[in-house]
Amino acid sequence: MKAVRLHEYHQQPVVDEVPEPAVKGPLDVIVKIGGAGVCRTDLHIIEGQWAERTQTVLPYTLGHENAGWVHEVGPGVTNVAVGDTVILHPAPSCGLCGPCRGGDDMHCENSAFPGLVNRDGGMADFLLTTARACVKLDPQTQPADVAALADAGITAYHAVRKAIPLLYPGTTCVVIGAGGLGHIGIQCLAALTATQIIVVDRNPDALKLADQLGAHQAVAADGGQVAAVMDLTGGRGADVVMDFVAEQGAEQEGFSMTARAGCYYVIGYGGELRIPTLDIISTERNIIGNIVGTYNDLAELMVLAQAGRVTLHTRTYPLDAAAEALADLDAGRVRGRAILVP
Amino acid sequence: MKAVRLHEYHQQPVVDEVPEPAVKGPLDVIVKIGGAGVCRTDLHIIEGQWAERTQTVLPYTLGHENAGWVHEVGPGVTNVAVGDTVILHPAPSCGLCGPCRGGDDMHCENSAFPGLVNRDGGMADFLLTTARACVKLDPQTQPADVAALADAGITAYHAVRKAIPLLYPGTTCVVIGAGGLGHIGIQCLAALTATQIIVVDRNPDALKLADQLGAHQAVAADGGQVAAVMDLTGGRGADVVMDFVAEQGAEQEGFSMTARAGCYYVIGYGGELRIPTLDIISTERNIIGNIVGTYNDLAELMVLAQAGRVTLHTRTYPLDAAAEALADLDAGRVRGRAILVP
Amino acid sequence: MKAVRLHEYHQQPVVDEVPEPAVKGPLDVIVKIGGAGVCRTDLHIIEGQWAERTQTVLPYTLGHENAGWVHEVGPGVTNVAVGDTVILHPAPSCGLCGPCRGGDDMHCENSAFPGLVNRDGGMADFLLTTARACVKLDPQTQPADVAALADAGITAYHAVRKAIPLLYPGTTCVVIGAGGLGHIGIQCLAALTATQIIVVDRNPDALKLADQLGAHQAVAADGGQVAAVMDLTGGRGADVVMDFVAEQGAEQEGFSMTARAGCYYVIGYGGELRIPTLDIISTERNIIGNIVGTYNDLAELMVLAQAGRVTLHTRTYPLDAAAEALADLDAGRVRGRAILVP
Amino acid sequence: MKAVRLHEYHQQPVVDEVPEPAVKGPLDVIVKIGGAGVCRTDLHIIEGQWAERTQTVLPYTLGHENAGWVHEVGPGVTNVAVGDTVILHPAPSCGLCGPCRGGDDMHCENSAFPGLVNRDGGMADFLLTTARACVKLDPQTQPADVAALADAGITAYHAVRKAIPLLYPGTTCVVIGAGGLGHIGIQCLAALTATQIIVVDRNPDALKLADQLGAHQAVAADGGQVAAVMDLTGGRGADVVMDFVAEQGAEQEGFSMTARAGCYYVIGYGGELRIPTLDIISTERNIIGNIVGTYNDLAELMVLAQAGRVTLHTRTYPLDAAAEALADLDAGRVRGRAILVP
Repeated sequence: MKAVRLHEYHQQPVVDEVPEPAVKGPLDVIVKIGGAGVCRTDLHIIEGQWAERTQTVLPYTLGHENAGWVHEVGPGVTNVAVGDTVILHPAPSCGLCGPCRGGDDMHCENSAFPGLVNRDGGMADFLLTTARACVKLDPQTQPADVAALADAGITAYHAVRKAIPLLYPGTTCVVIGAGGLGHIGIQCLAALTATQIIVVDRNPDALKLADQLGAHQAVAADGGQVAAVMDLTGGRGADVVMDFVAEQGAEQEGFSMTARAGCYYVIGYGGELRIPTLDIISTERNIIGNIVGTYNDLAELMVLAQAGRVTLHTRTYPLDAAAEALADLDAGRVRGRAILVP
Repeated sequence: MKAVRLHEYHQQPVVDEVPEPAVKGPLDVIVKIGGAGVCRTDLHIIEGQWAERTQTVLPYTLGHENAGWVHEVGPGVTNVAVGDTVILHPAPSCGLCGPCRGGDDMHCENSAFPGLVNRDGGMADFLLTTARACVKLDPQTQPADVAALADAGITAYHAVRKAIPLLYPGTTCVVIGAGGLGHIGIQCLAALTATQIIVVDRNPDALKLADQLGAHQAVAADGGQVAAVMDLTGGRGADVVMDFVAEQGAEQEGFSMTARAGCYYVIGYGGELRIPTLDIISTERNIIGNIVGTYNDLAELMVLAQAGRVTLHTRTYPLDAAAEALADLDAGRVRGRAILVP
Repeated sequence: MKAVRLHEYHQQPVVDEVPEPAVKGPLDVIVKIGGAGVCRTDLHIIEGQWAERTQTVLPYTLGHENAGWVHEVGPGVTNVAVGDTVILHPAPSCGLCGPCRGGDDMHCENSAFPGLVNRDGGMADFLLTTARACVKLDPQTQPADVAALADAGITAYHAVRKAIPLLYPGTTCVVIGAGGLGHIGIQCLAALTATQIIVVDRNPDALKLADQLGAHQAVAADGGQVAAVMDLTGGRGADVVMDFVAEQGAEQEGFSMTARAGCYYVIGYGGELRIPTLDIISTERNIIGNIVGTYNDLAELMVLAQAGRVTLHTRTYPLDAAAEALADLDAGRVRGRAILVP
Repeated sequence: MKAVRLHEYHQQPVVDEVPEPAVKGPLDVIVKIGGAGVCRTDLHIIEGQWAERTQTVLPYTLGHENAGWVHEVGPGVTNVAVGDTVILHPAPSCGLCGPCRGGDDMHCENSAFPGLVNRDGGMADFLLTTARACVKLDPQTQPADVAALADAGITAYHAVRKAIPLLYPGTTCVVIGAGGLGHIGIQCLAALTATQIIVVDRNPDALKLADQLGAHQAVAADGGQVAAVMDLTGGRGADVVMDFVAEQGAEQEGFSMTARAGCYYVIGYGGELRIPTLDIISTERNIIGNIVGTYNDLAELMVLAQAGRVTLHTRTYPLDAAAEALADLDAGRVRGRAILVP
């Protein structure tokens, strides 16, 4: 089968012919890929940002944002059957460790992360995953239409869901970056809270999209964004700041925009926070880490998607055009999310 | 009356003769001071760390950690009467703004902070405060015995109380610094949770005290403390780290000791955090700001103190010896808390 | 001035001429009434249901759901000024007891409840209340348009707000009764959650209104309502049931419609729950009490109202027609809320 | 092997010779029983209280509170091995449904309950369970010493853990019934909170035991218990009431002892609550259902037990003396818990 494989850091991945994966364990599931999202993390992987942390052996297949149809199942699989339409949680979990037993399977002590850590991902015809990663969908769903919810979506939803108790009427939430994740985050905020949503982005088209998706105010990231947010919040700053960028200075600005007793959610990455501890304690502000989400987060997000409360702005590319999709993302030419379709 | 007043930053405060304060508003309360705690923040004030932030006009009287007896009350005061023994919340609040109405009076939009921000503090014979700052105590309480709970105590209690849901049996909590605040924090942790308490301090006497107060493990801050905590937690790090130091490198170590999905509580200050956003998101760790606490935090802490669950290790100095007390604190010669007694 | 006064239980209140109220305490506020809502509780008061509990001395003026303009203020009032448009929290609180300090002013140990407990209410030209009850509004607001939010609104909002964490996507919430409170509750649910809303009412017009306000399914309370809810929830029952009736059998049906591990919210009253403890424990269901809400609940609700997310269906009557309004409510002839306008 | 089997409701179970259970599924585990607790629920089963609800086919083996050693495992079991000492969660769960994925495995949609619902329990030499029910223990633990934690313990712990946020310093918690569950609940309260613990029991020995385990006040259930609790709480009632009896009138008294805005936890069962909805709403009290607990609840409780914070008062009987143990329990002759040892 075809697969988009990374052979060396700092080089573009290439489309190789590789053997199809095979079921080994009783809970294994082989999925025929219908759509695989292209994520800023793929760019970061290629740049080597994750190399030391993951120690992944090259070459391997990229693609951690996948949906498709169940192609084959191990003998112990009871929750899905061959032919089912599924979206895949990016991190198959063990189900037996403390975090899994507590519903926090995102922090499974034995989890895998195909496409990122030492396992082939879904930019290919088929993917090996497990029963615990499969969320069953309405059979009429087109996997390419929803694949971006498997990572961009779940990550945005997870962060928003954690913030719900903070976002009661009268509060303000800033969204930094209305791209692949941010444009989903805005919809989740609009669906789940009545907070005032202020979107900050440097791209006018992204701001326009944000406005259509439920943002109440749009702020151009032209250097005056911190002042603009202060102005819109009566000098207080925002109760919650969701930073889907967190690099190139956005991380410092994001913290600066956060109100006394407020929370700055780091969702994007790449930059470095530098904050005097006096600034943290004198205002009692919090910095909240976020990565992907739980299985139930994904299941809940699919309910929102099914109800039309979250819709994706995608652009599809054939698997062979993976390099083009990555280049478009890197150059800021993708509104919403790029999806590879085998 | 006598008062310990700061005339210039970077110079020691001096004991001056000043007029007694007078009741002006209907809710004003004059307290005859029985004990005023000496806090690391007083050192930071003298060093000018708060100068830009507070814009306080010099000279003024230090002392933000006070207890005593009600001496005079305004016509609208109903909750205390002349002669009552009281401990004082450090930040008198308005009672009418959003945060006050929500029980979060620490973030009152109109609060004062005597001894820190533009108001004379309690290192004096008398202090002007308001009805909303007064927590009434058993008349047999000696104010000098409990004064340190008014700021060191409430701050430690507030941080611990916020962390209770994270500290179920099987978890681990690191306490960095077993000094004025930390030695109270340890007792609050032992009273309110069943977490495993690991204390990190560079001073062997402080570690010994920690052990007596309920710590389960003591780690010398001799350069190997991060490794030691990792070792004690099976390589995971601690679920919660309470950093009562947060300067001189403790802040970086504190974050490093924090487990995946864990929380690093910043309570001390003076240093600067430098953290790549990738480190925040890849492990979903949180950095939690903490400052003082609510009125109810102080009232609850006094219940613990009354029940003997939190006891203070103090050393008293006469008001005239304020400079000596500050010097002892700066030199690390105070176990527990120094208290000025007029 | 004119006032609608209850002279005897089981008799209709009458419009009397009485003296205007006067400011006595420093925080007192006199409000010129612009609108006073007519509530099912007024009927229950007349029926004597509250007599034993409140021990209110007759005669007194009814009306616990009021909005208007500040007419006169005591010397200590700082948050409102003469001429301000205000909506009034129904229970002026002391601001100094434990619940008040914790933001739970609904459970103030010294609160009053004008129009219900031993104080004249707002079915009159003027009402005596206090600074802590006043929520300041946009001066263009017409008090008669929003008065019903002061009790019906805050009560519905308070219950919904408590339930938000339970109402994530994929859950179901039943609303029993789409009348004065229920029609606001439906709008709050739609604004603050993405739960599936099922409305149960015996009146077809009420169900039609519910549909327009955001309900997803309408169930006629024709005897088959429990079965219908079970059917709509795949036999599970609803995760949350909000019972705005809680009398005449609705209370037993409401608990029966509640899913395993779900919550039954009692908001209306008049009936009696009879539940074997085995039914409570074998399914781990909860029964949640609800009464009115906090000051901040009302302030937040006014944000929703100002944004057009909650609109009231009202019918106004002149003060002199109070008896007619009460009769219409009793007979089920009011869609939404009846409002008296002096 | 031997097994204590119920052949008919309202008749005593008898010790039969039955075949040993065999591993069928990949996740099955056979446990050699070291101790099986005797529970009031066993009496209720014999009395037929659960007959209609569970539709269990007779005869079957009782015993839902078990610990022992792993005897045989299915091919897919990875978390325990033959010879491991284990305590067993009473309700093996599927791991794949929504509640399981959310950490709420007590509400697994496909769970079993050996010894209660259609599956043989552990009053026998061997028990068939699954990998998901096994909590691995220190090999030196004697199963008979801890077996009572598998049901009595987890149930008491679960209820207390849910109440922790309500039980801050200054609050009061009433425990009704200091028997099998209650004597564990008292220890959990003392280990996890700093609330004031008032124990109500009709048996003087039980009150004496409660005192040793951490209770602050003892109240004889002699008819004056509601008045006594009111007196001890300044007329307010208790913030939380944990009713481990909930029959024979305790259920009405328990609700009556509950303070305004407080919570009444139903843990025992057998009686019927009769409460006017006006009493629920006028004070905003809650009635909280409780049954058993999650896998993680049991794991956490074992941490407390291992640390000596929760100790059991037990009396062992040989398996053949099951009838005697049941009779002793029924007659109130057991302090703590009766344990059958094969």
